[in-house]
Amino acid sequence: MADVRSFAGRSRTPPRRRARREPGEGGPPHGADFALASAQGGITAPAGFRTGAVHCGIKAVSSALDLAVLAVDTPASAAALFTTNLVQAAPVTISRQHIERTHGVARAVVVNSGCANACTGTRGLAHARQMAQETASAVGCAPEEVLLASTGVIGVALKIDRVVAGIRAAVLALARSHGSDAALAIMTTDRFPKEHAATVRTPRGSFTVGGMAKGAGMIEPNMATMLGFLTTDAKVSPTLLRQALRASAHDTFNAITVDGECSTNDSLFALASGASGVAVDNATYPALVAGFLTVSRELALGIVRGGEGATKLIAVTVSDARSVDAARQVARTIANSPLVKTAVHGADPNWGRIVAAAGRSGVTFDIDRATVHVGGTLLFEKGSPHDDAAPLAAEHLKGITVRIDVSLGSGGGASATIWTCDLSAEYVRINGEYRT
Amino acid sequence: MADVRSFAGRSRTPPRRRARREPGEGGPPHGADFALASAQGGITAPAGFRTGAVHCGIKAVSSALDLAVLAVDTPASAAALFTTNLVQAAPVTISRQHIERTHGVARAVVVNSGCANACTGTRGLAHARQMAQETASAVGCAPEEVLLASTGVIGVALKIDRVVAGIRAAVLALARSHGSDAALAIMTTDRFPKEHAATVRTPRGSFTVGGMAKGAGMIEPNMATMLGFLTTDAKVSPTLLRQALRASAHDTFNAITVDGECSTNDSLFALASGASGVAVDNATYPALVAGFLTVSRELALGIVRGGEGATKLIAVTVSDARSVDAARQVARTIANSPLVKTAVHGADPNWGRIVAAAGRSGVTFDIDRATVHVGGTLLFEKGSPHDDAAPLAAEHLKGITVRIDVSLGSGGGASATIWTCDLSAEYVRINGEYRT
Repeated sequence: MADVRSFAGRSRTPPRRRARREPGEGGPPHGADFALASAQGGITAPAGFRTGAVHCGIKAVSSALDLAVLAVDTPASAAALFTTNLVQAAPVTISRQHIERTHGVARAVVVNSGCANACTGTRGLAHARQMAQETASAVGCAPEEVLLASTGVIGVALKIDRVVAGIRAAVLALARSHGSDAALAIMTTDRFPKEHAATVRTPRGSFTVGGMAKGAGMIEPNMATMLGFLTTDAKVSPTLLRQALRASAHDTFNAITVDGECSTNDSLFALASGASGVAVDNATYPALVAGFLTVSRELALGIVRGGEGATKLIAVTVSDARSVDAARQVARTIANSPLVKTAVHGADPNWGRIVAAAGRSGVTFDIDRATVHVGGTLLFEKGSPHDDAAPLAAEHLKGITVRIDVSLGSGGGASATIWTCDLSAEYVRINGEYRT
Repeated sequence: MADVRSFAGRSRTPPRRRARREPGEGGPPHGADFALASAQGGITAPAGFRTGAVHCGIKAVSSALDLAVLAVDTPASAAALFTTNLVQAAPVTISRQHIERTHGVARAVVVNSGCANACTGTRGLAHARQMAQETASAVGCAPEEVLLASTGVIGVALKIDRVVAGIRAAVLALARSHGSDAALAIMTTDRFPKEHAATVRTPRGSFTVGGMAKGAGMIEPNMATMLGFLTTDAKVSPTLLRQALRASAHDTFNAITVDGECSTNDSLFALASGASGVAVDNATYPALVAGFLTVSRELALGIVRGGEGATKLIAVTVSDARSVDAARQVARTIANSPLVKTAVHGADPNWGRIVAAAGRSGVTFDIDRATVHVGGTLLFEKGSPHDDAAPLAAEHLKGITVRIDVSLGSGGGASATIWTCDLSAEYVRINGEYRT
């Protein structure tokens, strides 16, 4: 398990390994110096955070929430990861500037759905700045202490008057009990809201991690998912917060793909209010990462489960590679293969497509040493098929959680998992009709 | 036009340029020293070639042709390009051995559909050798003078007894008039056969180029398409033949994609019988390349037009890049983007998805200098949309041939075109049900 690496040498006892682990099941392995438990709620589960969510008219549907403000009671440590797409939306540009100027301090985050404010030129930048200013004056902080995110159609200007009115209304509505409304307000083609929280107990006291995310299409984040937000009431320096965010994103938000598309608006934010009074230092850092990992994995897998047109969650694990990067590259090629994704959709144990995708991944391996398992059933080894096992694998593929395991037999022992979903006719319908 | 490069410095007059060229329209530009004309037929249009095609029982449908033999009356120069997939099918391995051993001489090609003979281990290699031996003894040549290709499901063993019987029957049926039957016999999910021929007139005499191809899914060749066959009755040395094959494949078979999948069986063969008596030397080499280009482009675009579930042919041209490779990389990323392909399917001029795909291609450019045209209509420039032009672009997208033009504004002037098709629900249906 890749997340074991994050803990190597930090936990007092060796990480427990399970013989069989279902995708998304359980938290990261950990030693005796901290304990994790699920918690109610999401982004406002940690103390010190409030949200307000409104319908201000960006989305056409009159009842749909389309703007949310997340506010912290006191200045919070802040960290963010942004899209690696060369084309970056205005809110990404402005958020990046703000977090650099404050050296990682924020008081609020404002998010709208229905419009990505991407490829909108200088007017888009002006709109993003205005969103930050309006939020700052309503909350009572400096504009640089506001981070922002937009999601929706690319290349359409924000209806800025509606957004401004929405920000004022959302700030008036701020309450700790509105966390779930915020998770609803950031949705676009998402079928369900994605929020999660966990309590982390350490010898120095307990703190809570919460989060929400959105995303269903244009998903192959390379830094962050479309939009993800993590909060904690631990007291964390901006530097340590950024480090924890990177560590937890690598095997969660950065290990998923719906359609291989990296968005212009991908952003992942983390805010630490310190309201629990528990300070995170080098000794308790693993506990913070564990909390972030648990919440991030739940949110990331939620994005895949709710992927556009998805009916199945697929965990592609590549093992015995020469390096983790090589394992990841093969797993990603399989996870993005339309032929593999359609075969899984049709519950067809077509391991030949898996082998063909691995073969074009650019990673060198010996096909005669490689094996392919589907749902734990061996379908291919020593260059030849085990076709008598196909019916058993087909049964597994009829379920909603699918495991594909490829061993490259390189003797290197490195492994990686990428999560994806199947490709259905519904994906085509959604994306052929999204704007019309 | 990329093919101009193949002729640079070879034609006596500069290549003619057309202001607007539809994808697939016309032949390559050329000077006064040769002339091209379409010809009837396909693979047997050049003199010296005969084909036989039969149903031997590899495909389940009782009337479907599933095996073809192409024979040359005298030993022919031969060249081939094979898949770059690490996983290569048995017929690819054996064909490669044969062409190396003979230094580019062949007497026959045997092809079956319905079974790819890939990932079939040592038994698969034995089957491929047996196919060559049976063909050789029926035709009357050495087994090394036989090239072979298989296409269909991966990982299933050939029904070798049926194949052997099929080879004998096909050789008995050899005739120049059976070219179209061969084009039918190599089909899998192809909706229509792909064959084309052209006559090339040079000051030294005329010769003919013919060809056939198959392929509809698992198409992003990186050397050759799934299966392509070119014949000519020009007299060409194996070395020059290989050079011409490479030159013509680069901007035809290697410039198309249906689903970004590189197959285990991709093979492109060229055979030159010499039966026209016209010898190709350095002076007439451009004429041979022109003939190959014309036939290859027609076949390659046929593969895209007949792509699994395809309803539209899309030509993605990226211009003003720093290098042809950079242009090609951006064009390929756009051409493989499921969001662009579904938007085209839905006739939605969603240029934002085009810009986002270009942005994640890995090629650096200045978004404020880039422009996007759809069907000749400017939709994006200077970082901002031209949304008033969207209805005109939407009209263009309702047609069956779509042009997407992206200028990167890099000042480099390099350009490349990649051809692809739209992504429809039918693609999902075909590939979710292919084996069941």
